[in-house]
Amino acid sequence: MAAEATYRRPEIRKDATHNRWVIFSQARALRPSNFKSKSDANPKSNNQSECPFCVGHEHECAPEIFRVPADSTSDWKIRVIQNLYPALNRELNFPSCPSDSSHCSGDVAVSGFGFHDVVIESPVHPVHLADLSPAQVGDVLLAYKTRIDQLRTFDSIKYVQVFKNHGASAGASMSHSHSQIMALPVVPSAVSARIESMKEFFEQTGKCSLCQVGRDDLLIDESTHFLSIVPYAATFPFEIWIIPRYHSTHFHELDSDKAVDLGGLLKLMLVKMSLQLNNPPFNFMIHTAPLQVNPSQVPSTHWFLQIVPQLSGVGGFEMGTGCYINPVFPEDAAKVLREVLIEHDSSQ
Amino acid sequence: MAAEATYRRPEIRKDATHNRWVIFSQARALRPSNFKSKSDANPKSNNQSECPFCVGHEHECAPEIFRVPADSTSDWKIRVIQNLYPALNRELNFPSCPSDSSHCSGDVAVSGFGFHDVVIESPVHPVHLADLSPAQVGDVLLAYKTRIDQLRTFDSIKYVQVFKNHGASAGASMSHSHSQIMALPVVPSAVSARIESMKEFFEQTGKCSLCQVGRDDLLIDESTHFLSIVPYAATFPFEIWIIPRYHSTHFHELDSDKAVDLGGLLKLMLVKMSLQLNNPPFNFMIHTAPLQVNPSQVPSTHWFLQIVPQLSGVGGFEMGTGCYINPVFPEDAAKVLREVLIEHDSSQ
Repeated sequence: MAAEATYRRPEIRKDATHNRWVIFSQARALRPSNFKSKSDANPKSNNQSECPFCVGHEHECAPEIFRVPADSTSDWKIRVIQNLYPALNRELNFPSCPSDSSHCSGDVAVSGFGFHDVVIESPVHPVHLADLSPAQVGDVLLAYKTRIDQLRTFDSIKYVQVFKNHGASAGASMSHSHSQIMALPVVPSAVSARIESMKEFFEQTGKCSLCQVGRDDLLIDESTHFLSIVPYAATFPFEIWIIPRYHSTHFHELDSDKAVDLGGLLKLMLVKMSLQLNNPPFNFMIHTAPLQVNPSQVPSTHWFLQIVPQLSGVGGFEMGTGCYINPVFPEDAAKVLREVLIEHDSSQ
Repeated sequence: MAAEATYRRPEIRKDATHNRWVIFSQARALRPSNFKSKSDANPKSNNQSECPFCVGHEHECAPEIFRVPADSTSDWKIRVIQNLYPALNRELNFPSCPSDSSHCSGDVAVSGFGFHDVVIESPVHPVHLADLSPAQVGDVLLAYKTRIDQLRTFDSIKYVQVFKNHGASAGASMSHSHSQIMALPVVPSAVSARIESMKEFFEQTGKCSLCQVGRDDLLIDESTHFLSIVPYAATFPFEIWIIPRYHSTHFHELDSDKAVDLGGLLKLMLVKMSLQLNNPPFNFMIHTAPLQVNPSQVPSTHWFLQIVPQLSGVGGFEMGTGCYINPVFPEDAAKVLREVLIEHDSSQ
């Protein structure tokens, strides 16, 4: 990591997508290199013989939903399965409201109906998402799309969150490469707030806030259909957003060509992040629109994929205010990530 | 920890104070005892001879703001000092807006003006807040109030966040018992959202949402002027709220009598949490109103103190949706915390 940041005065920036303030302050770390992860996300892999996600252990998992290719046997590439410990209950006859929720005025509850699935990204234990080819990463993205297309047939499902936890401190309980899909019967408040904030931006400027992103000093890389940037008011150090260059409200509008293109850029960002930050634990999240989006929100709502390396903890200030302190200015983070030169080899 | 929880179906509850959903699901942990902290927050104290917060090391700290008692020398009980690595800059001649913030439409920034102070809660290294007497904890609370009263004389300060990080994984970089006060030139969005959500509740019910809290199965303990509860839609396992029984908009309305009373209940909660959860790292935050609160929001805005033991990490689902998965139902957490019997000795 060669980039040395110049000193910048502290600054409070507004994230127009989420309508929240972020404090940028180098006081505790003058150099971006201070932010290399201290612990490798994969210090030692689980024993493959005990991993239920490995090929040959399919019977140890919760029921399969589908596999890729669909007609494969032991030569599957991707499996989408139920989570063995689901946070929500997929039984449709689940009572619609808990019996004791109305005892106390102001206490509102709905039943925990919903889906919680796992996407096993490779049959082979030590192969991580960043090790796959762009086309193979594209297949994982298309598996998300296929599952979302199934989930959105349920009228009671309002939002689908796709996410990946990589490394124990990022919340992963299994080291075998996987991501998760949760389908919820409510629209989470952070999602409503994001959609509302993007709509406000549109009303003020006549433009979609993510269609016009493109400050050169925040750009990391680009592909035919996507940009990767460090956002102007990044909440976390070295946070990356991958944004479609075309206006698109829902992730599940992705087609096969764009999936391979996105697969290549996602792979590139994961490889760059791993090289520059010492293979940190990370999360990625796909931020899409609620399934039943209001037509008036379509011009302003634009999906994106957010990657967050886990480099710093959260303390009482962040929990109290929802306002984060980011010690790395986005311009410096983008420079550090831009500097890693890797052959962008789509034939890999 | 003797309480055994009965199995409860997953449930999604709305936190009416913050207007957000929380998923309650025991799938990953049937018993509250699974949530004992794995690591003690104070495995070994820093070497006292190297700690700048200890008595005799005052010259190693950033400038002092005041001490308690005011006329004390080496017999001080509490010191309020500047943070040596402040996230915000207290120089009033700091430029009001960064020079390059207007280059790109939609990018909004203000200068990082503000205050970031530290409250050293005891002169003695191994003494933690929970070790102090109720009156001594009350003195720490009154030191917060005194500093807030100074900070609110600045027109440009809009919100003051008081918080405590205890233990490295809760964000504490020093093991000597301390808390922090940050004064901000903006109202954080989470604070605006909370004030707005409480106002909505008031408009719907004619009541302040925190004046009427009091379900028996969520109550942990009470004192003359305060209640301690596990909130109905607790975001985190074993989260505790201490709420004034009288309606009060701002924490800094606290008087000396109420400070001792609150000191006793806060101490009791910290002792109970430490005993039942194996001395976990924790944060506490004082949630108060913005300094220049709109008069129409006074009837609905009620300050409280939130204590959060650090027992579980945050993953991509929580980061993506702002919706947390809490494996311990509040009724079970309250029972576990109620069960610890400790002499409530205010003469201690």
